[in-house]
Amino acid sequence: MKIDIIGRGNVGSHLYHAFNEIYETKIINPHSLEGLNQDADFIIISVSDSAIPTVLAKLPKVKGIIAHTSGSTGINVFFENGLSGKVGVLYPLQTFSKNTSLDYSEIPFLIEASDSETEKALFSIASSISRNVRQADSSLRAKLHVAAVFSCNFVNHLWALSDEYLNGKNVEFSILLPLIKETVSKLSRLSPKEAQTGPAVRNDITTIQRHLSELEDYPALKKIYEMMTESIQRKKS
Amino acid sequence: MKIDIIGRGNVGSHLYHAFNEIYETKIINPHSLEGLNQDADFIIISVSDSAIPTVLAKLPKVKGIIAHTSGSTGINVFFENGLSGKVGVLYPLQTFSKNTSLDYSEIPFLIEASDSETEKALFSIASSISRNVRQADSSLRAKLHVAAVFSCNFVNHLWALSDEYLNGKNVEFSILLPLIKETVSKLSRLSPKEAQTGPAVRNDITTIQRHLSELEDYPALKKIYEMMTESIQRKKS
Repeated sequence: MKIDIIGRGNVGSHLYHAFNEIYETKIINPHSLEGLNQDADFIIISVSDSAIPTVLAKLPKVKGIIAHTSGSTGINVFFENGLSGKVGVLYPLQTFSKNTSLDYSEIPFLIEASDSETEKALFSIASSISRNVRQADSSLRAKLHVAAVFSCNFVNHLWALSDEYLNGKNVEFSILLPLIKETVSKLSRLSPKEAQTGPAVRNDITTIQRHLSELEDYPALKKIYEMMTESIQRKKS
Repeated sequence: MKIDIIGRGNVGSHLYHAFNEIYETKIINPHSLEGLNQDADFIIISVSDSAIPTVLAKLPKVKGIIAHTSGSTGINVFFENGLSGKVGVLYPLQTFSKNTSLDYSEIPFLIEASDSETEKALFSIASSISRNVRQADSSLRAKLHVAAVFSCNFVNHLWALSDEYLNGKNVEFSILLPLIKETVSKLSRLSPKEAQTGPAVRNDITTIQRHLSELEDYPALKKIYEMMTESIQRKKS
């Protein structure tokens, strides 16, 4: 089984490492497509969403299945660019950073395909690296991608804001790590709604007012504090 | 050594369990104060911020050290309520839920006291359950409490919003758990700023626009999406 991965970003590099353990895998420069194997069983396009049509436009005729790895790009990007059969999507619902090793077996892979044979083939290669493979159409995948942005990117940004806020206060961000770890750990026992703690959910006006005056010199943080507090209180009622 | 804990909420209950392993510990109803031991070495007040003055007002004369456990209440709450010496703060920087067991040894305890002898005594009992005890004045503690709200309460709320958004979409919130765990795991290797991924930080306008149209029917989520995206982009530049 031969897999060519087009794209050398975070996702492409990780998929290369995962698949290369099992299959004959190559990683291809998306600009030159140099070394692309037209006889590969799978051509996996792992580039930014806006670059997918560009890659499809210059892709030569290939024998195998063509799949992209984007959460928010529909399968119809292939049809709109003149391809019809043997195309699909292989979306890993994970955050990838270079130079970090991951347990691929835990990563949910979401599969969509133009036809059932292609779907079966994509299921098969995804299942060779992950225990968590399922079908998801473009609409569900788009929603999961939005949820992933809230649950990962925005969450991480709240930590970045905390880090910046504490910067220079004679305390390290790492003092928050036991709290952050426990916040995640609760999710294995409780739904996030049940796990909610803090002044907003217990309507502790005294503490909320103190926090807002603490943030008087940090208008951007104050705006986020107010919006998140309102949102927590709206959900409560 | 005798410790009386006033307050039976999440923090009070957990401190009771932790201290009761080592010391003669009682947990006291904050309304009646029934059974309070005026000879206890420590009286720990673990009630909501706004109830601390009420408890102090009805507290009989006691022999030992009186401490509260609030992040955002200054040590001056004691002085303002007619107490002077042998008072302090024992603030555990953690999120507590009932019926969950915790590794207390990892919890940062932040100590402040009216005098060095009281500080030493509070350090001593905190160090008997945690390896992570440090001094922090009321101003630093207030800032840490704000950072904890961003890093824990608001983070958990983003997960609650994701859960609600996916509800009814034929997919479980648990599909996001590997992503969430990796988001946290990165913090042991990278600063949150370095760990930031997603469409906002890479200025992927195509994806941001797709997400905003996905959220057209969810105005509250859309507002949070826009604000967090702007905030990420502001930090980038």
